[in-house]
Amino acid sequence: MKKLIFALIIFFMSVGHSFAESGYRLWMRYDQINDEALRTQYLKSLSGIRIDTISPTLKAASDELGKGLSGLLGRTLGLSSTASIEAGSVVAGTPASSSLIRGLKLQSLAGLGDEGYMLSSMVHNGKQITVIAANTDVGVLYGSFHLLRLVQTQQPVVKLSIVEKPLLKHRVLNHWDNLDRTVERGYAGFSLWNWHLLPGYLQQRYIDYARANASIGINGTVLTNVNANSLILTEEFLPKVAAIANVLRPYGIKVYLTARFSSPIEIGKLKTADPLDESVKKWWKDKADEIYRHIPDFGGFLVKANSEGQPGPQNYGRSHAEGANLLADALAPHNGIVMWRAFVYSHEVDEDRFKQAYNEFKPLDGQFRKNVLVQVKNGPIDFQPREPFSPLFGAMPKTPLMMEFQITQEYLGQATHLVYQAPLYKEVLDADTYVKGKGSTVARVVDGSLDKHALSGIAGVANIGDDLNWTGHLFGQSNWYAFGRLAWNHQLSSENIADEWTGMTFSNVPEFKVSLRGMMMKSRENLVNYMTPLGLHHIMGWDHHYGPGPWIKDKPRMDWTSFYYHKADSVAIGFDRTASGSNALSQYSPQVRKFYGDLKTCPPEYLLWFHRLPWSHRMKTGESLWEALSQRYQQGAESMDPLIAGWNKLAPYVDQERFDQVRMLLAIQKKEAWWWHDACLAYFQSRSGLPFPQGVTPPKETLEFYESQHFHFVPGI
Amino acid sequence: MKKLIFALIIFFMSVGHSFAESGYRLWMRYDQINDEALRTQYLKSLSGIRIDTISPTLKAASDELGKGLSGLLGRTLGLSSTASIEAGSVVAGTPASSSLIRGLKLQSLAGLGDEGYMLSSMVHNGKQITVIAANTDVGVLYGSFHLLRLVQTQQPVVKLSIVEKPLLKHRVLNHWDNLDRTVERGYAGFSLWNWHLLPGYLQQRYIDYARANASIGINGTVLTNVNANSLILTEEFLPKVAAIANVLRPYGIKVYLTARFSSPIEIGKLKTADPLDESVKKWWKDKADEIYRHIPDFGGFLVKANSEGQPGPQNYGRSHAEGANLLADALAPHNGIVMWRAFVYSHEVDEDRFKQAYNEFKPLDGQFRKNVLVQVKNGPIDFQPREPFSPLFGAMPKTPLMMEFQITQEYLGQATHLVYQAPLYKEVLDADTYVKGKGSTVARVVDGSLDKHALSGIAGVANIGDDLNWTGHLFGQSNWYAFGRLAWNHQLSSENIADEWTGMTFSNVPEFKVSLRGMMMKSRENLVNYMTPLGLHHIMGWDHHYGPGPWIKDKPRMDWTSFYYHKADSVAIGFDRTASGSNALSQYSPQVRKFYGDLKTCPPEYLLWFHRLPWSHRMKTGESLWEALSQRYQQGAESMDPLIAGWNKLAPYVDQERFDQVRMLLAIQKKEAWWWHDACLAYFQSRSGLPFPQGVTPPKETLEFYESQHFHFVPGI
Repeated sequence: MKKLIFALIIFFMSVGHSFAESGYRLWMRYDQINDEALRTQYLKSLSGIRIDTISPTLKAASDELGKGLSGLLGRTLGLSSTASIEAGSVVAGTPASSSLIRGLKLQSLAGLGDEGYMLSSMVHNGKQITVIAANTDVGVLYGSFHLLRLVQTQQPVVKLSIVEKPLLKHRVLNHWDNLDRTVERGYAGFSLWNWHLLPGYLQQRYIDYARANASIGINGTVLTNVNANSLILTEEFLPKVAAIANVLRPYGIKVYLTARFSSPIEIGKLKTADPLDESVKKWWKDKADEIYRHIPDFGGFLVKANSEGQPGPQNYGRSHAEGANLLADALAPHNGIVMWRAFVYSHEVDEDRFKQAYNEFKPLDGQFRKNVLVQVKNGPIDFQPREPFSPLFGAMPKTPLMMEFQITQEYLGQATHLVYQAPLYKEVLDADTYVKGKGSTVARVVDGSLDKHALSGIAGVANIGDDLNWTGHLFGQSNWYAFGRLAWNHQLSSENIADEWTGMTFSNVPEFKVSLRGMMMKSRENLVNYMTPLGLHHIMGWDHHYGPGPWIKDKPRMDWTSFYYHKADSVAIGFDRTASGSNALSQYSPQVRKFYGDLKTCPPEYLLWFHRLPWSHRMKTGESLWEALSQRYQQGAESMDPLIAGWNKLAPYVDQERFDQVRMLLAIQKKEAWWWHDACLAYFQSRSGLPFPQGVTPPKETLEFYESQHFHFVPGI
Repeated sequence: MKKLIFALIIFFMSVGHSFAESGYRLWMRYDQINDEALRTQYLKSLSGIRIDTISPTLKAASDELGKGLSGLLGRTLGLSSTASIEAGSVVAGTPASSSLIRGLKLQSLAGLGDEGYMLSSMVHNGKQITVIAANTDVGVLYGSFHLLRLVQTQQPVVKLSIVEKPLLKHRVLNHWDNLDRTVERGYAGFSLWNWHLLPGYLQQRYIDYARANASIGINGTVLTNVNANSLILTEEFLPKVAAIANVLRPYGIKVYLTARFSSPIEIGKLKTADPLDESVKKWWKDKADEIYRHIPDFGGFLVKANSEGQPGPQNYGRSHAEGANLLADALAPHNGIVMWRAFVYSHEVDEDRFKQAYNEFKPLDGQFRKNVLVQVKNGPIDFQPREPFSPLFGAMPKTPLMMEFQITQEYLGQATHLVYQAPLYKEVLDADTYVKGKGSTVARVVDGSLDKHALSGIAGVANIGDDLNWTGHLFGQSNWYAFGRLAWNHQLSSENIADEWTGMTFSNVPEFKVSLRGMMMKSRENLVNYMTPLGLHHIMGWDHHYGPGPWIKDKPRMDWTSFYYHKADSVAIGFDRTASGSNALSQYSPQVRKFYGDLKTCPPEYLLWFHRLPWSHRMKTGESLWEALSQRYQQGAESMDPLIAGWNKLAPYVDQERFDQVRMLLAIQKKEAWWWHDACLAYFQSRSGLPFPQGVTPPKETLEFYESQHFHFVPGI
């Protein structure tokens, strides 16, 4: 009887601010554990919460532990200060917040820094307790989420001896959100930030957004689009930004803004934005002071300059370093940072777009201020389904380079394709630059360990909108989750992250987790196959990037066409980036250059990134290039049936509403996978003139049909 | 024990597809009744559900009764066919769906038409049962919602003898939703219709939208903005429209679209859209046939033509009747209707905007096809906080006139002001046109009873968006609800509708309902006072209509300025619409003309609508006009404190999240009420040059300050 009453109470609590089954609760679902024996076992170790809630952050930790453990364990756990503990108490705090923690004289704390924590089972005064300890309140919050994750994924919590700290300092979401609430490359509805109603109206969603991010260790968020609007830096908007910052602060999340380089002209009434102009320097200094009056812990600026039409220092004949340093100097007195994007290329420069960021930035190495990070997209072009790592990684040892991943699926099926991106992130992070010999991975460049940088960071372009389930596709949540987990620790495996997420989001039944893990792990390669196999890239629809568009040619900017990248004609296909071509490979270290440049070692996945080859080129498998390309498209499209069948088999483990969401999207994905297959094969056949190999389904319609498809109001532009 | 298990199950069911407390569930909250005695009593009369679910509509009724009654009564009610009934059974169906219902030979059914129903307690074979019977499945659905409402508002359900049918045939929401998901005059986020993901992805929200509308008897919805895009009529979008229609159909809701008059040119490649051109006629006929192939029960077209830049028949020298008839002829074979808007006025015509719709449309009376309704905004200008009824009501006896109300609060504080609009709707519906003597109310014009029209209708411009709580302001839900209830039965009182809504949405505790009813009933008059007292109108901010703008003058269109409407100078204020002025009053029947035209009878609420008066004009209260105006602004602004105090007192009855939503918005409303007070008084004092009377708070800032306020990215444009 009592149990049921508790169950009822707990259920009420656990759905407190969420849709029951829309997906709104993300991975923070605290429904009662079904396995009675396991639950009883947990209750022995975790029977009460002891925390001194002397700060908003500790209060947040306490709320989360209370709500989470009580929900999962089906009993309202007693909550009180660390003054009185009992056997089974979860004791959380810092040496400063709790005299008990202080008294424990925990050795491990010394190495945990500002954000680390320890989770430890120990006996204190004869009582078995679980300690969550850290040097800072936010460390305690992170540790609390870790403990919850252990219970959510049904891991043991006895004999805990966990010590964790992040490998990267700045773990940041980039929202490409415009002030009118549209989201560039956003496919999950519109912006979370309701600027009009701020600062007076604070949505519950802001809090839940903060909880979700804190649960995976994200500690910064850039609220606005890199294609920036300077109005965000005015008194009309700064109080609104401050209101969001106030909500996020207890969760350890700093707010950043994008700075439009021409702001001194647009909102400052200056005649110039020249970074060497004294009035411009003063303007930015005053502006920074003004921002910090509103937001004392403001994080800093993210800047896209002299790229795709954005203004920048080059408008005044100055370098990117001069531009970045202008802002860095303004922020430095307040400990703010500048994240300056390396995503620059010009169609006026007669040079392979692949090479331009490197050419522009490498010479500037050493010229940036100490509080500048150069933010580099993972690949040299633009978030394609597969790219080699950007040659900038390893090429600027004197500059901390920040990784920029795209979580939102601009080129990965937008919000309708199930694509688990951890393997993509890992592929890049684990890639070896060889710049200081074997083991000089991109991850080690980014985390600062290779070149001994104290400053380090990683950014993910958010896939979050105001859709009820936050990310449009339920599995988009897994990418937000995976980004956060890898930002914390890039050594985690994609498989383990998938298991954590599926366990927390759906079910911990082993056969369910194994099946779903398999589906997720294959999903990105499936997409590569039906979209851009063998190293094809940038062949999607014009402008909105929705669907296939290998025929895109003759546009005002050649580097925005597909033909520029595949150059397919009757004889050959691919972009020669070896020494006989653009020689982009020369930007890599000799080992990498040789690996990709030599047809004997270049993996088929990267082939057309670096080589221009005749259709008749023999692959290692013995097939011709034409046959291999056709077969990959076929393989990609055919991968959808098992995926759908796999999901349908999982129906018993998933509630109806979320099951249906995914079921409907998989049907759309299948249709679109075949659309890519058909349109690309029709197009490439029109180039090669060759027959399709056996087993390859011919396109359903003519090439003209696919070329004539036009779509209005595609989201995310 | 059993009870608790039930309670648990029921709770799971009741939150099935909803946020627990975000407001997502609207008034369809089926949480268990707290009063144990009452619940037990209900369970005696309502212990099982018997319905033959032979159609999707009956299935919907069955689902709703099952979910609703089980939730409210805390016990999973047995669900089966009407073949076997027991004492306490709720038996629902039509003579066609159920032989039991057929066997009852219910006399009342004869008069119920296509949408009516009866709710009746009766004894059958010695068993006490409750019968929900109708001639049609949708009648059964409506009756089911009625029964649920009785239980939700804790009314008795024994000795039921209810017979209901709607007084109006077409009860329609107008969504001013654009295809890019922005919503014109939408303040609750973005459009519900996710066109990009349709037809493949059907949000749960579409179903919940249908349920909400069916629960209040709304039977039609226009999906698209009256400022129309012809693309909606193409093969790119029609399958998407059909997918929505398929979701709404079981709930008795027909889908309509806005038709852009120039579509034959824009999407049909014709050279003209002249309604008398044969190729144009054929084009629309073919287009209608095509639409009906997608949507066999398509409702028809809503058209804004030759108004605010929209194309129309006058572009070709044809009349509105000729334009409407073109579309009506195309739809007639499929039983579709045309709703042709009378909201027309031109700044090129040197005539009081008040008079233009009447001048344009009255001469056309009798020229419209049988399947045309002329849709008339409630007032002659544009949804102001208070308007006299449009003189068209009563002036076109041969034409069915459809009422157009605005539910979205374009001029009523947008989504931040608590304004319960039922009193506004009632004020208009109950107004007497006197065209056929006393009692010729606007409601009787609209419901067709005055002029014996079979066709009748009412439209409400929706306030619905993708915000978690649907309407931005929680109390916006009450306006959606009130519109639907009055569309069904315009004789209901505002007070009763408020009581129903508060009971279902929050609590049935009598002191709570009485308090909240009082707050709601005063809310519209409060707003009139702080925005546009004494008959002022159209003095809001330019373009976005956010905030005060009495100083707006010298714009390209005079009839879009504020000065045009108040004409305030150092001597006088107001628009003379008597015989000495524009004589707009001549458009009313003599009784109305005299009532408003005579200063002795004209109510102060309408004074400046019809009279231009010196500031020194003596009001009946003895004050001067200037004093009265100032006092009304003061009264309006001061009304916010008691409203806020009132809400704070209700905290014990409302969950935290919804309480906070309203609390935060009331704080914004208070700020904005004083902003209106300050800005308008500063401006009008600059005209009158008079001192403020005692008790009136002087504006905090200078007039220049208020005039200099500019706002970016105000929603809803």
